[in-house]
Amino acid sequence: MSARTSRLSLNQWTTRRWSVAEAVDGCVRHGVEAIGLWRQDVAAQGLEETVKLVADAGLRVSSLCRGGFLTSGGPEALDDNRRAIDEAATLGAACLVMVVGGLPGVVPGEPPGTISRDLPAARERVAEALAVLAPYAGERGVRLALEPLHPMYCADRAVLSTLGQALDLAEAHPSERVGVVVDTFHVWWDPRVLEQIARASGRIASYQVCDFLSPLPADVLLGRGIMGDGVIDFGPMTRAVAEAGYTGDVEVEIFNADVWAADPDEILARVKAAFAEFVGD
Amino acid sequence: MSARTSRLSLNQWTTRRWSVAEAVDGCVRHGVEAIGLWRQDVAAQGLEETVKLVADAGLRVSSLCRGGFLTSGGPEALDDNRRAIDEAATLGAACLVMVVGGLPGVVPGEPPGTISRDLPAARERVAEALAVLAPYAGERGVRLALEPLHPMYCADRAVLSTLGQALDLAEAHPSERVGVVVDTFHVWWDPRVLEQIARASGRIASYQVCDFLSPLPADVLLGRGIMGDGVIDFGPMTRAVAEAGYTGDVEVEIFNADVWAADPDEILARVKAAFAEFVGD
Repeated sequence: MSARTSRLSLNQWTTRRWSVAEAVDGCVRHGVEAIGLWRQDVAAQGLEETVKLVADAGLRVSSLCRGGFLTSGGPEALDDNRRAIDEAATLGAACLVMVVGGLPGVVPGEPPGTISRDLPAARERVAEALAVLAPYAGERGVRLALEPLHPMYCADRAVLSTLGQALDLAEAHPSERVGVVVDTFHVWWDPRVLEQIARASGRIASYQVCDFLSPLPADVLLGRGIMGDGVIDFGPMTRAVAEAGYTGDVEVEIFNADVWAADPDEILARVKAAFAEFVGD
Repeated sequence: MSARTSRLSLNQWTTRRWSVAEAVDGCVRHGVEAIGLWRQDVAAQGLEETVKLVADAGLRVSSLCRGGFLTSGGPEALDDNRRAIDEAATLGAACLVMVVGGLPGVVPGEPPGTISRDLPAARERVAEALAVLAPYAGERGVRLALEPLHPMYCADRAVLSTLGQALDLAEAHPSERVGVVVDTFHVWWDPRVLEQIARASGRIASYQVCDFLSPLPADVLLGRGIMGDGVIDFGPMTRAVAEAGYTGDVEVEIFNADVWAADPDEILARVKAAFAEFVGD
């Protein structure tokens, strides 16, 4: 294990074909010490079995993906988020990643039906839901991690588009309950990103890295690349995150059709090499 | 002519199949009083003939698209922008729209070659080029209009992603020389958009409207829709632009494969109706 990759965490969807058990084995095989898990894959493996697999392998769980989708209101979303918080607690995950949801009625990948175009109201609903969920998370020792998504997902996935916005929301709560995710793909373009990372001192719950591809593929959700394959300069953001006091794991999360089609072992080897070259500890 | 559409301007690329002469005729036929022109179409028609066509039809020229692409440096870009400024002066255009360019070496639609990933440096190059071009524009009575583009175009088309950034740059110059474009498609997601429009008082050189489609099409450049077909709430931005003192024309600029494939006369009729419903004067 190179010291340059000791904080590398494999977000499970980078090797999406692998089950939890396979991804855990892959981490062990490649000397990766931490893993970011997804709820549906954990459910498929079984929550208790996942706990055991991860413990036996000696892995840290850097995050659980994901809670959120709070903008349409309704008790179902809150209930589902409480279950996600419980799962994160059981897994001992460092945080529960929150993708807050888009405009009410907008379904990713589908043409618009009856939607609400009131963006400030959707954002207000997120704040209201957080006021309910943050104390619940606090009781269970789980940290919610608000993830600003790239503005191209504002309509369908997250009305939270900048780190500044995420911090405005998070700062209404104790930092051990609500932090933020810094994901290079989502925030690299932001002219204020470095000052907002500095402001996030003590609030960074997760640092995720992957590249931004240009041109974007037909499905913009899959525009994430292995570090070095796109346009992002990782040095300044990585340094700023370190200067803001973040010492946790650094997840590599890549949604990409070519990456998913390739041999996961090859991908993990490439990811590790790219991490050492472009990110490091 | 409805009073609700007296400020509607047809950006020529909304009816992209039409030549300048055809677009001018279309405006007259549909009672549209202003037009936004593109340099290559003006060149194809002939600059002097365009001046005559527009004058004979009694149209206002709300903008000339476009100058910019300043991030790669070099005297060629400055020379081309000086020519664009001269053309805008000859046409009596209310402004020259500036799309500032992406990261040096990134070519829209092509895989990355040798590129520069230094985003702050690319932005600095825009400021340096503006310092040269703004006085030239001032001498010719042309107003440069800095257009922040949606962050999904940061790598390949414009390192200027927010209205706040555009204003930071513009404010180094007299407002009659350098203003900004407010284009709903590009800025609707920005949590600070209304405060930045208010800040832009006296600096708004162009207000462009079109909708943001969800899901985005395979080519994200073509994700612009006729007002009402997407996710944007036009009222708050339109009111903020009015409150900021902007009284100029309001351009409808739609890049969209279906719109381009349709009969331009039908499109212009639809645009006019949608403008009256969602924007108005």
